[in-house]
Amino acid sequence: MNFIEKLELAQHKNNSLLCVGLDPVLERIPDLCRQSAEPFFAFNRALIDATADLVCAYKPQIAHYAACGVEAELLSTISYVRENYPHIPVILDAKRGDIGSTAEKYALEAFERYQADAVTVNPYLGGDSLEPFLNYAEKGVVILCRTSNPGGGDLQGLEIDGEALYLKLARLAATSWNKNQNILLVVGATWPDELAKVRKIVGEIPLLVPGIGAQGGDLEAVLKAGLDGEGRGLVINSSRGIIYASSGDDFAAAARRASLELRDAINVCRKSQTV
Amino acid sequence: MNFIEKLELAQHKNNSLLCVGLDPVLERIPDLCRQSAEPFFAFNRALIDATADLVCAYKPQIAHYAACGVEAELLSTISYVRENYPHIPVILDAKRGDIGSTAEKYALEAFERYQADAVTVNPYLGGDSLEPFLNYAEKGVVILCRTSNPGGGDLQGLEIDGEALYLKLARLAATSWNKNQNILLVVGATWPDELAKVRKIVGEIPLLVPGIGAQGGDLEAVLKAGLDGEGRGLVINSSRGIIYASSGDDFAAAARRASLELRDAINVCRKSQTV
Repeated sequence: MNFIEKLELAQHKNNSLLCVGLDPVLERIPDLCRQSAEPFFAFNRALIDATADLVCAYKPQIAHYAACGVEAELLSTISYVRENYPHIPVILDAKRGDIGSTAEKYALEAFERYQADAVTVNPYLGGDSLEPFLNYAEKGVVILCRTSNPGGGDLQGLEIDGEALYLKLARLAATSWNKNQNILLVVGATWPDELAKVRKIVGEIPLLVPGIGAQGGDLEAVLKAGLDGEGRGLVINSSRGIIYASSGDDFAAAARRASLELRDAINVCRKSQTV
Repeated sequence: MNFIEKLELAQHKNNSLLCVGLDPVLERIPDLCRQSAEPFFAFNRALIDATADLVCAYKPQIAHYAACGVEAELLSTISYVRENYPHIPVILDAKRGDIGSTAEKYALEAFERYQADAVTVNPYLGGDSLEPFLNYAEKGVVILCRTSNPGGGDLQGLEIDGEALYLKLARLAATSWNKNQNILLVVGATWPDELAKVRKIVGEIPLLVPGIGAQGGDLEAVLKAGLDGEGRGLVINSSRGIIYASSGDDFAAAARRASLELRDAINVCRKSQTV
């Protein structure tokens, strides 16, 4: 089973397009977990146990661990999902990108060391720089396309023969780069018009959409723009809105409520889009 | 003293534009070091001691450590340079890039955890994604511009109003992004014509040039294209050609010979360019 099949099965099983971003910041981890010898892992484990029947994926962002030197806790987190919820894929959000033998090392980091099901990558170095990732045919490779930040357009929005760079990229990703059919793209929720243009180009390639919640993306507009013909094809990520739903020791129950609410809000919109 | 001043001092002191890439691969580390409890660090330490009077910088590539979970040995390596050769700057080659609070975490990783003097970053996410790095005014931020790989042109070479993307980027980097005057750019040695175009746009901004040696870049062409008006402004990186100059236990002496040879070859070309 490859990554996209695993993702679709989890989406179906949990009736969910919701991905929870596991981006813990030590100062915001509630006391209950902060007293643990492994506060990042303790926090994540409680969040995972509280939400595993509501999500289609988890997405830990690696910088949050690397900044503090707690790679071991990132590894424990991914292992915990694999052992306890093996049907839920883990997307390692690392935005890696390099060339040749160095890209191979980054692929080893994501897929062998951390055993992630997918990794986010940066396409600026071109198609050959992504091959070491894409060659893992059973893994997912999630390529940055149109990012959610205000400056995302500085390069991505530049026009080439009347078409923006991110659309050229989407075309490359959907065709010549996608030999193993294991590519996904990142398009920020803050740009629903751009999301619609990407969807038109890439057919049924799944799109990972950050920027709902804290960054202000509009859920209904996102779904309208991004769902594929079968009302699927999106992975809607929320991090801070879920994991910090409460700053107290009831954080896990609060995360569950927030996940349920967002999953169901997505499904209501999804239904109204597809009927 | 900011990064670029530190770099120029080291270039002057060692009469060198040579940067040695510390990219160890366990299978290629000679027996003498492989028996150590910290083989990556033992290898690097010997290389550093053998070359510290011949280089202007060291550039460890982080994926080589992350793939094997030896972040501690990367940290030991950088600390060793800082303690023993404090005038030699360390460029952490990580090619990071993300937005907002996540980019801040990556900046913490490079500048606080590892105490690097500079870090390589990927510009695809735009100017605001680089600010958390650029805000460290005393640190160097080395932005990918035109990479040395065959596919580097897939995006970087696309033409916008008759000018390639990497040149648009060079212009942004040299002007509106460079408020703290701490930007450098990466341009591969495999593209001397492109290097000349970048130099023309960016004035005296230093350029980090990988791709000499294993990747086949032509030294004379690179220097002709890339030196600034004062015969400086380049950091010429070599990794495999130096660190694997011998596969035996004489690797450090061989690395010294290879470094001396390349440093002097650069200086001979440099002299003939500037007189």
